[in-house]
Amino acid sequence: MARPNTDMDAVRGQLLDLVEGIIQRRGATTVTLTELANEAGMSPANIYRFFDSKESLFEAVAERWFEPKIRIMDEVVASDLPPREKLYEFFARRFRLMQQNHEQDPVLFKSYCDLGHEHLEIVRGYLDLGDHYLAMIVAEAIEQGHFKGLTIDQSVSLINLMIQPFCNPGLMFDLVERLTEDKLKLVIATILDGMRGQSLSKLKLMAA
Amino acid sequence: MARPNTDMDAVRGQLLDLVEGIIQRRGATTVTLTELANEAGMSPANIYRFFDSKESLFEAVAERWFEPKIRIMDEVVASDLPPREKLYEFFARRFRLMQQNHEQDPVLFKSYCDLGHEHLEIVRGYLDLGDHYLAMIVAEAIEQGHFKGLTIDQSVSLINLMIQPFCNPGLMFDLVERLTEDKLKLVIATILDGMRGQSLSKLKLMAA
Repeated sequence: MARPNTDMDAVRGQLLDLVEGIIQRRGATTVTLTELANEAGMSPANIYRFFDSKESLFEAVAERWFEPKIRIMDEVVASDLPPREKLYEFFARRFRLMQQNHEQDPVLFKSYCDLGHEHLEIVRGYLDLGDHYLAMIVAEAIEQGHFKGLTIDQSVSLINLMIQPFCNPGLMFDLVERLTEDKLKLVIATILDGMRGQSLSKLKLMAA
Repeated sequence: MARPNTDMDAVRGQLLDLVEGIIQRRGATTVTLTELANEAGMSPANIYRFFDSKESLFEAVAERWFEPKIRIMDEVVASDLPPREKLYEFFARRFRLMQQNHEQDPVLFKSYCDLGHEHLEIVRGYLDLGDHYLAMIVAEAIEQGHFKGLTIDQSVSLINLMIQPFCNPGLMFDLVERLTEDKLKLVIATILDGMRGQSLSKLKLMAA
């Protein structure tokens, strides 16, 4: 009984390759199911067996983009690394992967960024999943004395802000020439060594 | 002899108001000098007395966007504040200003971001000027024992990366709901308390 599903998955994979080809040629403009059917030499009725709406096609494209990133996050969180190295690898491995993707085909990389930007409602679920994984690492770091005076949520939020250039692909695209792994190491170390809630009181604000 | 220049400046200012109106209505699509002349009820020949090319028109638009930010940076750098508060005010005052601009007219704000993104060669000079001001504050901070083991340039580069959401208007637009001054305070404090060159050796990398 598994055979038909496997075949379906294989065809879906081939269709997604075609979609990538369309995005590569045309940028992140809307790909329609009719167009994909034409490209695949399929009838429009047939294509609906694989993707029942344009929405579900974009969900599949997003799934393919995020799948290796989720695998990385899963592996790092499950590893025995101490929190310091865990936090570094959590971002560094995805940063390396995205840098490779960018190097291989900068135009396609940019198109995926634009596509994600246009379909934030689909992307958001993946970002929330990333926050969930990050929260697990932050909880371990807090146990070891980091992020004093901050909650897990506050820490996750601040880390996400300070690490943007290394994990937001659109920003990464703009800053790519200025980004290195050594800088990421320093950013992670700065976050671990400097981030605490008490710092807030140290900043005496000027009278406005 | 000053009179004609003053008049010229006044008309240039009015023309830039018209340009803002066009950007507001149409987004960051290219504004031509002919279109601006029409809008102003001027002959195309006359408009060239004020802007001798489309390029010089965009330079004037950029100058108008950056002028209040440069004034802020100038004031903060010249102030007697200690480096900690200086670094905070350097970013906080511009952050507040851009937040206000965004609140007043989010669509226009976004159009200016897009326009800057399309004319990076014009924007770059202003970003370099910002780096120059930041380097002056960093030099004072280093004198007071911050950023040990890092050069001024390294520190400026790292600070710029970690502060992106609070100073890059395009990113600010995307993250606006998550940005607060308290978070900026914590980011600045984290940078000042945690950033040092020696941190690099603390991160033992995993065998790849």
